[in-house]
Amino acid sequence: MNRANVIDELRAAVGAEHVLTDGDLSAWERDWRKRWHGKALAVVRPASTAEVAAVVRTCARHATPLVPQGGNTGMVGGGVPDGSGTQVVLSLSRLNRVRKIDADNLTLTAEAGCVLQAVQDAAAAEGLLFPLSLAAEGSCTIGGNLATNAGGTQVLRFGNTRDLCLGLEVVTAEGEVWDGLSGLRKDNTGYDLRDLFVGSEGTLGVITAATLKLSPRPAATMTALAACGSLAHCVALLRLARARLDAGLTGFEVMGRFALELVARHFPALPRPLPAAAWTVLLELGDAEGESQARARLEALLGDALEGGVIDDAVVAESMAQANALWHLRESIPLAQAEEGLNIKHDISLPVSAIPAFCEATDAALRAAIPGVRLVNFGHLGDGNLHYNVQCPAGNDARAFLDEREDEVNRIVYDAVAAHGGSFSAEHGVGQLKRHEMDERKSPVALALMRRIKRALDPQGLMNPGRVL
Amino acid sequence: MNRANVIDELRAAVGAEHVLTDGDLSAWERDWRKRWHGKALAVVRPASTAEVAAVVRTCARHATPLVPQGGNTGMVGGGVPDGSGTQVVLSLSRLNRVRKIDADNLTLTAEAGCVLQAVQDAAAAEGLLFPLSLAAEGSCTIGGNLATNAGGTQVLRFGNTRDLCLGLEVVTAEGEVWDGLSGLRKDNTGYDLRDLFVGSEGTLGVITAATLKLSPRPAATMTALAACGSLAHCVALLRLARARLDAGLTGFEVMGRFALELVARHFPALPRPLPAAAWTVLLELGDAEGESQARARLEALLGDALEGGVIDDAVVAESMAQANALWHLRESIPLAQAEEGLNIKHDISLPVSAIPAFCEATDAALRAAIPGVRLVNFGHLGDGNLHYNVQCPAGNDARAFLDEREDEVNRIVYDAVAAHGGSFSAEHGVGQLKRHEMDERKSPVALALMRRIKRALDPQGLMNPGRVL
Repeated sequence: MNRANVIDELRAAVGAEHVLTDGDLSAWERDWRKRWHGKALAVVRPASTAEVAAVVRTCARHATPLVPQGGNTGMVGGGVPDGSGTQVVLSLSRLNRVRKIDADNLTLTAEAGCVLQAVQDAAAAEGLLFPLSLAAEGSCTIGGNLATNAGGTQVLRFGNTRDLCLGLEVVTAEGEVWDGLSGLRKDNTGYDLRDLFVGSEGTLGVITAATLKLSPRPAATMTALAACGSLAHCVALLRLARARLDAGLTGFEVMGRFALELVARHFPALPRPLPAAAWTVLLELGDAEGESQARARLEALLGDALEGGVIDDAVVAESMAQANALWHLRESIPLAQAEEGLNIKHDISLPVSAIPAFCEATDAALRAAIPGVRLVNFGHLGDGNLHYNVQCPAGNDARAFLDEREDEVNRIVYDAVAAHGGSFSAEHGVGQLKRHEMDERKSPVALALMRRIKRALDPQGLMNPGRVL
Repeated sequence: MNRANVIDELRAAVGAEHVLTDGDLSAWERDWRKRWHGKALAVVRPASTAEVAAVVRTCARHATPLVPQGGNTGMVGGGVPDGSGTQVVLSLSRLNRVRKIDADNLTLTAEAGCVLQAVQDAAAAEGLLFPLSLAAEGSCTIGGNLATNAGGTQVLRFGNTRDLCLGLEVVTAEGEVWDGLSGLRKDNTGYDLRDLFVGSEGTLGVITAATLKLSPRPAATMTALAACGSLAHCVALLRLARARLDAGLTGFEVMGRFALELVARHFPALPRPLPAAAWTVLLELGDAEGESQARARLEALLGDALEGGVIDDAVVAESMAQANALWHLRESIPLAQAEEGLNIKHDISLPVSAIPAFCEATDAALRAAIPGVRLVNFGHLGDGNLHYNVQCPAGNDARAFLDEREDEVNRIVYDAVAAHGGSFSAEHGVGQLKRHEMDERKSPVALALMRRIKRALDPQGLMNPGRVL
């Protein structure tokens, strides 16, 4: 690789002003949690699929590695360059058009750099719903959501990003353009390339656009909190809610007592309707018929759950403002954690039925290993997805705790996850952070298949190297 | 390949009585529509995953091609051997256990050879629903459903087979076992191998078991027929029904006048509530609350559609027996076609919004090319999936028509499909039947990626050769 040649050719491909090599590039070189800080050969900002293809071909010709980047909101260091100064950051942020909305087909075609909220807004402007929703929606991009198969709060009803995608446009590792922007709900013509690129974190090619599934907007949304005495009671409530509300159940989040105590400590102004519960469940119902109907259904469910001893108490939001306040409680947990100080985060998934036993065993193992340890446990119970985070004992130095105990804590947690049939990455992906977990914990047969696929589609190994595999 | 050695080793692997080489093997060598009739080296019937792996290793060692077979109900010749006498038919029918049901996790793990109806029944016995439903459900197997990503009548609400699968167990082309039987709804740890094997028609490996998603059973199901003056009116009704019923809309089938006339001619005893409609829509609503609620919702929808001029007439089934009779009408179309004589079948998909224009253009093109041609058009409008079948003019010899005009008809239909952004195979797959359409019509970039994947996972090219690619 001749550095000057590569940069000259990149400038020719996208215009000199869109090839950044000097000044403060930390917005692209560092992740938002400031956990990884690399050094790019250049940051390149193409504005079209053809320009992306030209960039990829240039890099391929010069054997220069490429790191695709969306909104740079990832959790696992998948979108920032390493420290070598040899990797080109390919920012998709200028590919940000909504190309098309087809209301009768319930589809929307957007470019990779569209911010998620812009996609949501474009659907809403047609009276429709793009249901993907997550904390970073104001800055993450749909290309990144697809590359990491992002989850969020509506997975229970609508699935992960994978399930919301009907077709892709991809620039291959050779710099060819695959136009797979189908708006088709059925297409059995060969291998499922779409789902291979979705979730591959930029290691097989660059997603440049996608055709996404839209849904009708529910006529009414109703939100409630319920207090449960144990996780087993939460699972029982989930089962009851599913049977009674079926697809109307659009959210089912659990929050452990300590998680909500952190919110109360750092955001004391927030209302806290059910303060004493061991576990608090946030339920959301989307109803096609209207508000009174939605309220009646949710109240009937909670009434029966109360009578059956499944829950101890409940409140149903009386207004949209109250509903937002309940969600705000849930969404404040990550911020409250940040205020409390560093902790060791785990984005794990388990069969829903295994969650009570997993938490009992893992809580006990961590408390035995680290007396006084504090567990911030919350997440998307309906999807079997917990954010099971480990905070140092009160008064300890959080940084020192991480430095000294992170490997040990991870081993305890991930061993327990494996023992209960779970996964060490539910919705955040692998990136750099969990690559060694892949080597250690993923089935060797699966790993061998993945490596063959990687070699087949990216024989030079230039697409986001050092990530996933 | 030494034929005798291969057969000896296969006998050692699965027991001599399960390696069939003599007598009438047409149950395995011929497809049920009798369109393809091959000759197998042997029919091998392993009873466990380990035995499947042993069979695959034996074949790999002797460079012997393998044709996996489920219930042999496919439409595209994907599961029968060619005429060379060199291919081993690997029948999965003895792997037919339901291994596990986890009600709290809403999952069921079944072996590939389980008949679809047995999976449905096992879910029902727990009060749950496995929603995949199609005409062959009494004899097709879940392994075949997965290998072909089967569709059916409940796709609108529940998706294709792909969407109902959480994890797979697969024997690779080398004869290794990948245990990916996850019951997880979120698992972002590397490439999506599951979706790569689903729909690959046995060309990348052998699916031996799957963990499937279950749903709560709806409290009530309500069925109706509606008469529409045009396909555009059908699309308008779909849009209205989606907005009003959302996920409650579990079925939306269209039937053209001639399709129902064939049913009336060959099954005159069947009731036909709306005889004069150009297009008849069958709607199904699944409701979590109960029958009176379901009826009220469906009647309100149809009342508004009538008032708005979207439909001309409608009937709601008054009983389960009447609902079954309405579905029976829909399900009798394929049988009525068979009674009428051979026709040229097309299982196509389009963006829903493109269907009226597609049918107008294609009907006209066919009528211009073949005066008097009769079009049997019906299908899953909610999924954009039509069974657009071409019957010879009345009085003509159907066999001669096929022999003389099939290529020309296919070209007219598939050219129009491509022009309207559709696919030449919606839910039936590629198999042998549509392989040349792959070469001709699939994006060369997509084909090249698929061929690389095939070579990477099946370097000897022994897994169901001559299918898909």
